[in-house]
Amino acid sequence: MTTPTFDVLISEVGPRDGLQSVKATMATADKFRWIDALVVAGLREIEVCSFVSPKLLPQMADAAEVVRHALTHPGITVMALVPNLRGAEAALRSGVHKLTIPCSASEAHSLANVRKSRQDMVEEVRAIVRLRNDIAPGVKIEAGLSTAFGCTIQGEVTDDDVVWMAERVVAAGVDEAGLSDTTGMANPAQVRRLFTRVRAAIGDKTGAAHMHNTRGLGLANCLAAYDVGVRTFDSSLGGLGGCPYAPGASGNVVTEDLVFMFEAMGISTGVDIEKLIAAREPLQAGLPGEPIYGMTPLAGLPKGWVGVNHS
Amino acid sequence: MTTPTFDVLISEVGPRDGLQSVKATMATADKFRWIDALVVAGLREIEVCSFVSPKLLPQMADAAEVVRHALTHPGITVMALVPNLRGAEAALRSGVHKLTIPCSASEAHSLANVRKSRQDMVEEVRAIVRLRNDIAPGVKIEAGLSTAFGCTIQGEVTDDDVVWMAERVVAAGVDEAGLSDTTGMANPAQVRRLFTRVRAAIGDKTGAAHMHNTRGLGLANCLAAYDVGVRTFDSSLGGLGGCPYAPGASGNVVTEDLVFMFEAMGISTGVDIEKLIAAREPLQAGLPGEPIYGMTPLAGLPKGWVGVNHS
Repeated sequence: MTTPTFDVLISEVGPRDGLQSVKATMATADKFRWIDALVVAGLREIEVCSFVSPKLLPQMADAAEVVRHALTHPGITVMALVPNLRGAEAALRSGVHKLTIPCSASEAHSLANVRKSRQDMVEEVRAIVRLRNDIAPGVKIEAGLSTAFGCTIQGEVTDDDVVWMAERVVAAGVDEAGLSDTTGMANPAQVRRLFTRVRAAIGDKTGAAHMHNTRGLGLANCLAAYDVGVRTFDSSLGGLGGCPYAPGASGNVVTEDLVFMFEAMGISTGVDIEKLIAAREPLQAGLPGEPIYGMTPLAGLPKGWVGVNHS
Repeated sequence: MTTPTFDVLISEVGPRDGLQSVKATMATADKFRWIDALVVAGLREIEVCSFVSPKLLPQMADAAEVVRHALTHPGITVMALVPNLRGAEAALRSGVHKLTIPCSASEAHSLANVRKSRQDMVEEVRAIVRLRNDIAPGVKIEAGLSTAFGCTIQGEVTDDDVVWMAERVVAAGVDEAGLSDTTGMANPAQVRRLFTRVRAAIGDKTGAAHMHNTRGLGLANCLAAYDVGVRTFDSSLGGLGGCPYAPGASGNVVTEDLVFMFEAMGISTGVDIEKLIAAREPLQAGLPGEPIYGMTPLAGLPKGWVGVNHS
């Protein structure tokens, strides 16, 4: 049996990015049901939790347990977010396949989000890489360059600042560096320009596009990233989540609409949209009353829809 | 004094497409206030009404009066939709600058929407062109090829069908033929392919992209159209409107988000976003309780926003 290959990888961030952005805490058993439904829909990479102080984020207190459950699904990549060395150690010991470390391209956002300068954050990344090499050498590490397209605190973030940070984290040993539109300020021209510049600087270590739909441009920005060679896209089911430390920012790209766009274009994702829409049920059951988004689930699939043929 | 030129033309369709899609009828004086606010925001082309039987669409009973008011604004192009020769005659006598005629690319939609086959519709267009040549030769005529990207009744619409219709209406004498995603089924790959094919067939007579946001792809499809040379885009303030004869379809592209996307990319529209957002007030005052959409008005403009410099 051969593993099917797909044109793009949708990295589902809802169980981490979504759940840590809402006030309510989803029960552990509900998280399991939701993650199971995401796997059934065909998602192959899921950011299932973050390893942070449960005092700061009680929503993530069951992180190790959630990882343990996710690891029972063969064939998927189980990711966790870690903001520092302490979180990384817990994550690595939990058995995750991949870590993502948020690293602000904006100095002001870095200080507000993790209370570290960008240079200090690079040193933290270096320490995490060293620990990974010692105790879990098979685990991949991604740096997610947040506020890469603009910052609600300092305003503009220059392309040079982003490229500088991408080069530093790669030099510190990460396997890939992605670009995050934390604040929903990206536009398609900037996405094309910046991913092209970052790729020129760090080549195949260029990672995912993590776009927000704050001003409605989420899918247009994903299209723009695809146009310049990006093949991994972060999104969250029902558009749950955003960045609690970037005031006024909200709205991850909706996985359902993103998958619809790519599949309609003939670009295979490996995801079954009908099963993906069904995965909204456990999400809603586990977070009663929480608003979720998405146009494709409301409109339904077009008449005659077949998606990409994977036969 | 020279007239400033801009990179793209945003053709605001709200007062026609939006108002004829909602049940309530906006009072004539409220329409005037709304249109005035749209002009103040810098919109240069506005589809202000349709000339149809007031029994079918009481929302448009004041069409001639609305045109008369819109014509008091110098420098804007006043458009009206006409479904047939009778409407065209009334529109031409009202003094509009431009007519748009919906012409379905799908035979099934054509029969449902105007009770004519596509060939019969081409003959109607020919008769309208003849009348225009006789009584108002300065007026431009656009055919809007509806269901160009798919039909909720017949499903797929082939590219050949769309090109066939584009060639026929141009042969019948229209000045331009645009493509409408009436049913929200378009995807960016299809938009690029189909506009490129239509341009190969009818050249500079290729008209506007009229995209819907039914499945969240409205802006991505506008970006795709821009990429292949389209420079006129239909949208409606607050995303008001859709197509009442295409069940399940809804949601014009939101003018506020479309203008934000282009201006953020450095593509000038001539529209002032803050004044555009202010134009939502008369719209809401004239249609109390009617839901309107748009992400940019909710999120606000990004810190440090300047838009495109028109100095």
